Amino acid sequence: NSSFNQKKHPHRRYNPLLDEWILVSPQRANRPWQGQTEKVAEEKLPVHDPNCYLCSGNMRVNGEKNPDYKGVYVFDNDFGSLMKVDVEFSDEQPDFFSLKPERGINRVICFSDNHSLTLPEMEVNDIKKVVDVWQQQYEELGAEDYINHVQIFENKGSVMGCSNPHPHGQIWAQSSIPSTVLRTQENLKKYFEKNGRSLLEDYVKKELEVRERIIFENEDFVALVPFWAVWPYETMIVSKRKTENILKFSDPEKHSLAEILKDLTIKYDNLFEISFPYSAGIHQSPTDGKPHPEWHFHMHFYPPLLRNAEVKKFMVGYEMLAEPQRDITPEQSAEILQNLSVVHYKTYK
Amino acid sequence: NSSFNQKKHPHRRYNPLLDEWILVSPQRANRPWQGQTEKVAEEKLPVHDPNCYLCSGNMRVNGEKNPDYKGVYVFDNDFGSLMKVDVEFSDEQPDFFSLKPERGINRVICFSDNHSLTLPEMEVNDIKKVVDVWQQQYEELGAEDYINHVQIFENKGSVMGCSNPHPHGQIWAQSSIPSTVLRTQENLKKYFEKNGRSLLEDYVKKELEVRERIIFENEDFVALVPFWAVWPYETMIVSKRKTENILKFSDPEKHSLAEILKDLTIKYDNLFEISFPYSAGIHQSPTDGKPHPEWHFHMHFYPPLLRNAEVKKFMVGYEMLAEPQRDITPEQSAEILQNLSVVHYKTYK
Ligand SMILES: O=P(O)(O)O[C@H]1O[C@H](CO)[C@@H](O)[C@H](O)[C@H]1O
Ligand SMILES: O=P(O)(O)O[C@H]1O[C@H](CO)[C@@H](O)[C@H](O)[C@H]1O
Repeated sequence: NSSFNQKKHPHRRYNPLLDEWILVSPQRANRPWQGQTEKVAEEKLPVHDPNCYLCSGNMRVNGEKNPDYKGVYVFDNDFGSLMKVDVEFSDEQPDFFSLKPERGINRVICFSDNHSLTLPEMEVNDIKKVVDVWQQQYEELGAEDYINHVQIFENKGSVMGCSNPHPHGQIWAQSSIPSTVLRTQENLKKYFEKNGRSLLEDYVKKELEVRERIIFENEDFVALVPFWAVWPYETMIVSKRKTENILKFSDPEKHSLAEILKDLTIKYDNLFEISFPYSAGIHQSPTDGKPHPEWHFHMHFYPPLLRNAEVKKFMVGYEMLAEPQRDITPEQSAEILQNLSVVHYKTYK
Repeated sequence: NSSFNQKKHPHRRYNPLLDEWILVSPQRANRPWQGQTEKVAEEKLPVHDPNCYLCSGNMRVNGEKNPDYKGVYVFDNDFGSLMKVDVEFSDEQPDFFSLKPERGINRVICFSDNHSLTLPEMEVNDIKKVVDVWQQQYEELGAEDYINHVQIFENKGSVMGCSNPHPHGQIWAQSSIPSTVLRTQENLKKYFEKNGRSLLEDYVKKELEVRERIIFENEDFVALVPFWAVWPYETMIVSKRKTENILKFSDPEKHSLAEILKDLTIKYDNLFEISFPYSAGIHQSPTDGKPHPEWHFHMHFYPPLLRNAEVKKFMVGYEMLAEPQRDITPEQSAEILQNLSVVHYKTYK
């Protein structure tokens, strides 16, 4: 009997945020791949694209015209998944057919008027303006009576279902706390009630001690590959101070967040020397007016790529039916990300 | 105030198998799509492909040679995610770094020696042989002391990460009950303990009463779009009789299962007149030697396509961070599937 080696032997790891296990198969990283590959779109984009419905001054799909904005610009999504309308509804429902109307607001945030940029290529001061708008939007939307949760996120790259390269993110604000956020909240709460401290505060402390999965830190934030990461290059940005939500951040803290966002996304771009696709988003306290001492601001990055710019990780059969599964270990991914430069590859090419 | 209309207004639906809600946005089905499209590979495949590592008599990636098999053929996966080896392991682990070794066996099941076929194009009697092998494998693997769960599944189509069109599925058998199966089991158990009946038995009865989401049924099985389906054309095959697992099926029942598998996958192929991609798999009782009266055999089909052969549903940003979201309603999908022929489009083309 050989003894267990986490770089060699299949194992499961525990995710305390979701209270579930994931499967890690380090020995599987080298299997040959003959399957689907992704197109790598690396055309040079213009600063303003007359056909882009997000560019300044252009017509949108619904016939409205964008103002000649500079910098960040927010508007209501023309094809939202939610509606503001308050409909009449009878609560009586047969068993197994439980549903309820959901109210909400969908917004689009253009990060810049410059069509050709993405977060890693923007100046820190301009990313800071995006963070400012996230804060304003969380406040403004959260203040609506019927909005109890504000989900801020970005889908980047066509492989992540993003249909327009213009740098932008989204907000889906709604009456209910969404499923995954609620699960996270329940686990944060259990920990907080038991220990009187934030789960993520304690976790980050441990990670800063062992330093195997930390990518970097600045004064206010840490970027790391979670011990229980599912996606090959999944990362998390966590505030060092236990802040329940983005409203609590001071101006210098927002600047720190912009900085770490820039550095992390530069490393991502440098990994395969492409504009790196991902879905990213903020987890923070809901806007339901209740106290939430258990919450601790963090941001998840879920990038789909595995081996190179063309081969992604497929979360399919086993993963959909049974359990998330990953090949390279979180420690290997963290090491690769640690060793990448924070100077964008385009600047030295 | 208008009154609620589930064909028009955003709402959430409850999934009792996972005890969570999903978001339905029926009004969003018509938004324009300018994003990534999928390649539709509709080449005519040969009956035997000398370059296919799953065909009879061919060399596999690891240098082994396949026998000259006819019909169904099972072998251990050359690049498995699990290993049989029992490693020594100390259970003491620091907080937040919980892991444990996982033992298991990965197998590949070739459904046929004919490289050019898929389930919908196979004869019912030949699909029945696949069902026989699923039963044998569940029994054989489940009998191993250290195997407590046997996951049988199929990834079909390159968009689902399948790298070889040769008709085949997989089995991942392992020591632990995987996360999603465990969650399902907990909910089945709660229902069973409270009501003394199977959740799915009661659910199927209700669906057979209202008949809004039933695609078809035969003597032993029902195929339906679950009320809480997430994927646009997600379906479920459920046994009418409460059978905990595939071992309990008689020969006629296995024949019924083969029949409904054929008809459902033909409808899928007919939907966009392509070989329809999906991940599918069986949920049934674990092989942990404990009694499982709560379990009820069912099979999930998760197909990625949304509008046509080229446009899939992206489960990205909001879905990854917050909650699954769908556009067309389950009732609309069910109606579309109901109206499709059970004669394969290739036979009348
Ligand atoms: O083993 P395969 O078919 O090569 O691999 C495929 O199915 C597996 C199980 O769902 C996934 O883990 C892989 O990401 C996918 O590419
Ligand atoms: O709203 P978009 O960017 O067009 O749409 C994209 O993001 C949404 C939110 O994650 C998803 O529901 C869609 O499937 C995806 O294509």
